[in-house]
Amino acid sequence: MNIKDDFQKIKEYFSPKVIGEVNDSYIKIAKIKGDELPWHVHKNEDEFFYILEGKLFMEVEHKKGFLMQTGDYHLVKKGMKHRISSKEECKIMLIEHKDTAHTGEVKSKITRSIKDQLQGIS
Amino acid sequence: MNIKDDFQKIKEYFSPKVIGEVNDSYIKIAKIKGDELPWHVHKNEDEFFYILEGKLFMEVEHKKGFLMQTGDYHLVKKGMKHRISSKEECKIMLIEHKDTAHTGEVKSKITRSIKDQLQGIS
Repeated sequence: MNIKDDFQKIKEYFSPKVIGEVNDSYIKIAKIKGDELPWHVHKNEDEFFYILEGKLFMEVEHKKGFLMQTGDYHLVKKGMKHRISSKEECKIMLIEHKDTAHTGEVKSKITRSIKDQLQGIS
Repeated sequence: MNIKDDFQKIKEYFSPKVIGEVNDSYIKIAKIKGDELPWHVHKNEDEFFYILEGKLFMEVEHKKGFLMQTGDYHLVKKGMKHRISSKEECKIMLIEHKDTAHTGEVKSKITRSIKDQLQGIS
C-alpha cells in the first residue's frame, strides 16, 4: 500500500479516507483546498496533523494562525477549537481516535460519515 | 515541529522517539539500519509502519518478506510475529498503542524504555 497511489483515488477536498486502523485510532489521508471547513472542536479526542505535501494554514483558538509546510506536524489537543484551510492543494495525514467526527459537533456540507471515510481506498 | 529537524536529533538506529500523543496512541519516528531487531510480537497492539524515506525490509510470520519504499505503509496486526531490517538508512514513522513495547516481549541490546523514547525530540 502506497500513499501516492491512495491519493490518486481521492477526488474531493476535505473528504478524509481511512488508510489504517491501529487499535482505537484511525490513520486517514485527505486533500485540502479552500476554506470550507468550519471552526469545530473534538471534545474528547486529540487530533494529529502531518503535512505530506503542500502548505496548510492551521488556526487554533487563542493562538495566531500559522502556516504548516511539508514535514510539519501539529497536535490539536481535545477540546481546542480549530480550523484548517489551504490556498493550493495540500495533502495531509490525520491520526484520530475512532470516535472522532472530522468536523466535530458542526455539520456542514463537507461533513462526511465514517462509512464514507472507510470507502474508496482499499 | 518538523520531522526533518527531529531526525537530525536522532543519532542511534532502532531507537524510536515519540513525536506525538493522540489519545492512547504514540506517534514515533525512527532510523533503521541493519538487522539487529529480533523477531518479536505485540500481543495486544497493532503497529502501523509508514516509510518516510528509504527502503525497509518487512517480515511477518507466514508471509514472504517484502521491501517497503518511500510512501509505503503496512499494518502489523496484534499477535503477528514480525521483524524489520534495512541495508541502508531508512526513516520511518510508527503508530502504536501507548502500551506497546517496541521489541515486544523480547529484550535485546537495542530495547529502549518508553522513558528513553520520550526524550530527545522536544
